[in-house]
Amino acid sequence: MTQHVDLNCDMGEGYGAWSIGQGEALLELVTSANIACGFHAGDPATMARTVKSALARGVALGAHPSLPDLQGFGRRSMAISGEEAYGLMLYQMGALEAFARGQLRHVKPHSALYNMAARDKGLAETIARAVWDFNPDLTLVGLSGSESIKAGTARGLRCASEVFADRGYEPDGSLTPRGRPGAMFEDEELAIARVLRMVREGAVRCATGEDVKIQADTVCIHGDQPRALVFARRLREVLAETGIQVRTLSERL
Amino acid sequence: MTQHVDLNCDMGEGYGAWSIGQGEALLELVTSANIACGFHAGDPATMARTVKSALARGVALGAHPSLPDLQGFGRRSMAISGEEAYGLMLYQMGALEAFARGQLRHVKPHSALYNMAARDKGLAETIARAVWDFNPDLTLVGLSGSESIKAGTARGLRCASEVFADRGYEPDGSLTPRGRPGAMFEDEELAIARVLRMVREGAVRCATGEDVKIQADTVCIHGDQPRALVFARRLREVLAETGIQVRTLSERL
Amino acid sequence: MTQHVDLNCDMGEGYGAWSIGQGEALLELVTSANIACGFHAGDPATMARTVKSALARGVALGAHPSLPDLQGFGRRSMAISGEEAYGLMLYQMGALEAFARGQLRHVKPHSALYNMAARDKGLAETIARAVWDFNPDLTLVGLSGSESIKAGTARGLRCASEVFADRGYEPDGSLTPRGRPGAMFEDEELAIARVLRMVREGAVRCATGEDVKIQADTVCIHGDQPRALVFARRLREVLAETGIQVRTLSERL
Amino acid sequence: MTQHVDLNCDMGEGYGAWSIGQGEALLELVTSANIACGFHAGDPATMARTVKSALARGVALGAHPSLPDLQGFGRRSMAISGEEAYGLMLYQMGALEAFARGQLRHVKPHSALYNMAARDKGLAETIARAVWDFNPDLTLVGLSGSESIKAGTARGLRCASEVFADRGYEPDGSLTPRGRPGAMFEDEELAIARVLRMVREGAVRCATGEDVKIQADTVCIHGDQPRALVFARRLREVLAETGIQVRTLSERL
Repeated sequence: MTQHVDLNCDMGEGYGAWSIGQGEALLELVTSANIACGFHAGDPATMARTVKSALARGVALGAHPSLPDLQGFGRRSMAISGEEAYGLMLYQMGALEAFARGQLRHVKPHSALYNMAARDKGLAETIARAVWDFNPDLTLVGLSGSESIKAGTARGLRCASEVFADRGYEPDGSLTPRGRPGAMFEDEELAIARVLRMVREGAVRCATGEDVKIQADTVCIHGDQPRALVFARRLREVLAETGIQVRTLSERL
Repeated sequence: MTQHVDLNCDMGEGYGAWSIGQGEALLELVTSANIACGFHAGDPATMARTVKSALARGVALGAHPSLPDLQGFGRRSMAISGEEAYGLMLYQMGALEAFARGQLRHVKPHSALYNMAARDKGLAETIARAVWDFNPDLTLVGLSGSESIKAGTARGLRCASEVFADRGYEPDGSLTPRGRPGAMFEDEELAIARVLRMVREGAVRCATGEDVKIQADTVCIHGDQPRALVFARRLREVLAETGIQVRTLSERL
Repeated sequence: MTQHVDLNCDMGEGYGAWSIGQGEALLELVTSANIACGFHAGDPATMARTVKSALARGVALGAHPSLPDLQGFGRRSMAISGEEAYGLMLYQMGALEAFARGQLRHVKPHSALYNMAARDKGLAETIARAVWDFNPDLTLVGLSGSESIKAGTARGLRCASEVFADRGYEPDGSLTPRGRPGAMFEDEELAIARVLRMVREGAVRCATGEDVKIQADTVCIHGDQPRALVFARRLREVLAETGIQVRTLSERL
Repeated sequence: MTQHVDLNCDMGEGYGAWSIGQGEALLELVTSANIACGFHAGDPATMARTVKSALARGVALGAHPSLPDLQGFGRRSMAISGEEAYGLMLYQMGALEAFARGQLRHVKPHSALYNMAARDKGLAETIARAVWDFNPDLTLVGLSGSESIKAGTARGLRCASEVFADRGYEPDGSLTPRGRPGAMFEDEELAIARVLRMVREGAVRCATGEDVKIQADTVCIHGDQPRALVFARRLREVLAETGIQVRTLSERL
């Protein structure tokens, strides 16, 4: 059986005069792009350009909705109500859809919202409901094993489990918090070896030495890291060598 | 021949803890509501509630996109590029559509953006193009006789010419700037008489004493004025007495 | 010995076209005003006008710095770093001082920031340090018995312990969370009786029936409640009848 | 007589996760830094760090207040009232002063606000009044020959006339608008030669071939241009060779 995996990256994370990340070069190496929708980054003109760039390269478009926090780049968790969570999801998906015109394929909540939804069942259900109400054909991307994936599946959405090449995992499948020993894998070959095992065996060695089950539908490529392009190219090489095809989520699921 | 006119008001102009205007009571008296889309007012939760309220009363939904200016409530004109104008139109229409789910009927740019587009041919064309690209079935609402109406018509959009009961007009059909003598008509019966004439005769007496041609497809009811409800009720009475039907734009055009 | 207490209210919580609360009428009844500094409310022009109004009535000026959250009115707790907390305190105090010109007397963090600092020792210390660095003569207002008061005192600041007339207390001196039974006291005479006891006896009956020690340097008057003015007038009457003087914090401490 | 000139650059123009410009390296080459105050860039933590960096290098601190426009980086002109202009100046100067603690030396309005004030007498007077009210010892930096300089001088402020090395001038002393022929001088040696002549002779050759009188108290170094550092180094070399001292404004005036 041929194995395959999607590679996703965040894109369009500039705002007005500011830009961040590797920009469009990374679009040559991924199959899915999560596009900022204005709440952590992504003014309308940037969104228009990013959608165009991604479509021109055949990269699948995804919404990357965030908590309303430009100053914190959506990285600060925030106590929002269910009504607020539902509203901000719909608002941002709709705003992006105006540029994507029917080409939207997936949704991946950004940063703090992603992490909050991974653990908080109520929030995960609200997000799944917002995606379903907006467009039940969209794929919801969430942390492998998280409440997000459970809530999306229960709601009837196609879900894609995401894994991180450079992050450590805890025995319960959650990410080792940044700052703790084993949180980050900076050795690129080791990171790639971990991805291979996640895709082929559905397992990852966690911080305590045990194996934890994991589902690797899509691998996150961090575009804001200096070696993002080098890493993505090397990952694609190794995936090709080992016969793992890189395919968009919609081809997979 | 039966005559008819649409009555429109701005709605959903709160933001988080703040509210403004007469709120939902005015929805009982108008046929079209222009809903704030987040740039001058209207956080996502407010947008969701406003859409629901308007639909529950059979009021036609419209987008009310603005310049990005919460602090100035979208009232301060601003030098934006064509790319920015196109982007902010799409972004806000899309965001509202996520709540309106196919029920969006019209678009009316807000305040400074409306006034800028009334005079600026290039901006008017950009706005018309944005509406067309987003959804060519939407009606574009603009100042009677303005560049907005000309550009929308040229683009192939249905356009609705708007008139103001309480504002004075210049010989060229533009509004007498606030602060000038004759800019505002505070006498309600006089304001209503002017509306009647605009609807029935297509004319309004301007500041210099001459008549100016005007098309009255829809009358703006200012919800932020203390007597808005009283005025709207009285206007509807007089329209009924004179046999002018109040109909939504889509029934008219 | 004469007893005395300060009455404080939040003020200047409009933003551009929006306003909230009882506005200036409440300034006639309090001795201290906490003025919004732009992050949850309070655009610069509103700040200028509010400072002027408060000074004209001899009300002591205080800064009311908030988390950066206009959409949530500063009511949503947010995971901020120490550097961010220090920065937002200095920024907002400085901005208000530009209008207050040496008349700033106290600082009271707003809503979620206030509640976070009441429980979080590290944050409380950062806030105390920011106030000290900005102006060591300012009084820091915090929840009676909170980490804020402890940290402010340890830093060498004058601190004012705040009590709430209409809120229930837990045995540990914290406020009963909204939504729980006993969280709110809507009976005004009962609320006033509780204030009297807090001022005279330094105690309040908590939800479980026990007494908890409390220090009442200043009582918060919620200006956004419809009966705020009535309540404030009645409270002042009763305080006068019982010989408790209403004095600003600087007269007290 | 020894001649001298100040070199200024904009600094601290990041916001949260975003940065822009050459950053601190440019601080080694200038004598004055205009620090973003939060309205076009510059979150509080960035302001704190930028003030520290500038002071560590003995660079004079200036406020760089802007129109409220993060999305447009303060580059879009905007119709603001006098009350709004006064308020935003005070607010931003105050916010920066909280970090600068008495070390603020000058104020230079940013981008669109700078250009608006150069032409608009009323706005220029409002800005001069705001600076005076905030701190009459600050130096106001404005375009040489502009309304800003006239209004500042009339108000009694020390004013510093600014010149641009790489911009063309019109016969009336205004800058040739970008996009027009002769608006930009990309040849660095020519740009430097123009600076020399402005400093030594008080004149610049304008687009039409005539000389226009100009006062060069300070030269703007654009930090967002790729060759900013190279240009600044070369300019300092040439100034040294020709015996023109580079001094902060406060040493000069």
